Amino acid sequence: MLKSNRRKFLASAFFLGIAGKIFGQDKQKPKADKTMIVHHVFFWLKNAGNEADRAKLLEGLRTLAAIKHVSKLQVGIPASTEKREVVDNSYDVSELMYFESLEAQAAYQKDPIHLKFVENYSHLWAKVVVYDMNVVS
Amino acid sequence: MLKSNRRKFLASAFFLGIAGKIFGQDKQKPKADKTMIVHHVFFWLKNAGNEADRAKLLEGLRTLAAIKHVSKLQVGIPASTEKREVVDNSYDVSELMYFESLEAQAAYQKDPIHLKFVENYSHLWAKVVVYDMNVVS
Repeated sequence: MLKSNRRKFLASAFFLGIAGKIFGQDKQKPKADKTMIVHHVFFWLKNAGNEADRAKLLEGLRTLAAIKHVSKLQVGIPASTEKREVVDNSYDVSELMYFESLEAQAAYQKDPIHLKFVENYSHLWAKVVVYDMNVVS
Repeated sequence: MLKSNRRKFLASAFFLGIAGKIFGQDKQKPKADKTMIVHHVFFWLKNAGNEADRAKLLEGLRTLAAIKHVSKLQVGIPASTEKREVVDNSYDVSELMYFESLEAQAAYQKDPIHLKFVENYSHLWAKVVVYDMNVVS
């Protein structure tokens, strides 16, 4: 009975997203996987490879985590995986976001924090490529 | 006391990765975020937009979840987000993987299940673009 209660509590906590809020930056709710939108953005700096500009842009991207529509945010740089013809490691900074719906993604685009980010940091980049993926598994 | 035990159980389950195994396909361990490698692959089909070929490739990609080095796998298709100049929605299928280290990613490349996937499904695609991202937040 106790075991069953624990299981129920664990299940509830997890599905209500409490687990994600307790355990750090992972705000993703696993049950939403099937309708989830992945928004993956790649930035090429005007000063390609410039460490100070890269750090500045990463700092700016981190402010986007405060936007309520963003379920999860990860920022990164090219990984040192094997150089292969198919691998594009020419970008400087990348941002990976999860949204629970198309509506949340659309609302994010117009959120004041996002607009402020574009205003304050867009002078740093020369090129942006965005991939929006609808998770089907 | 009961509440405290529940919290401890929840914490243990989460950090041991049990929660991820119980609750579906999410095998990602949140505490590994800081050293995580995101491997995002975009496929353009030879028969662009062909639904049967798309379904077949998605089916093939799902077999990759069995590879032990893969912490998390999500497969998807272009989302119906707003068409903007920076958004590339020309691909047919996408695969997003998480690895806990560069070594895990390298081992994945040589895993027999991965090689079998390439053997059985590579005739479907005309172009592949890969982005490997080292998560820094």
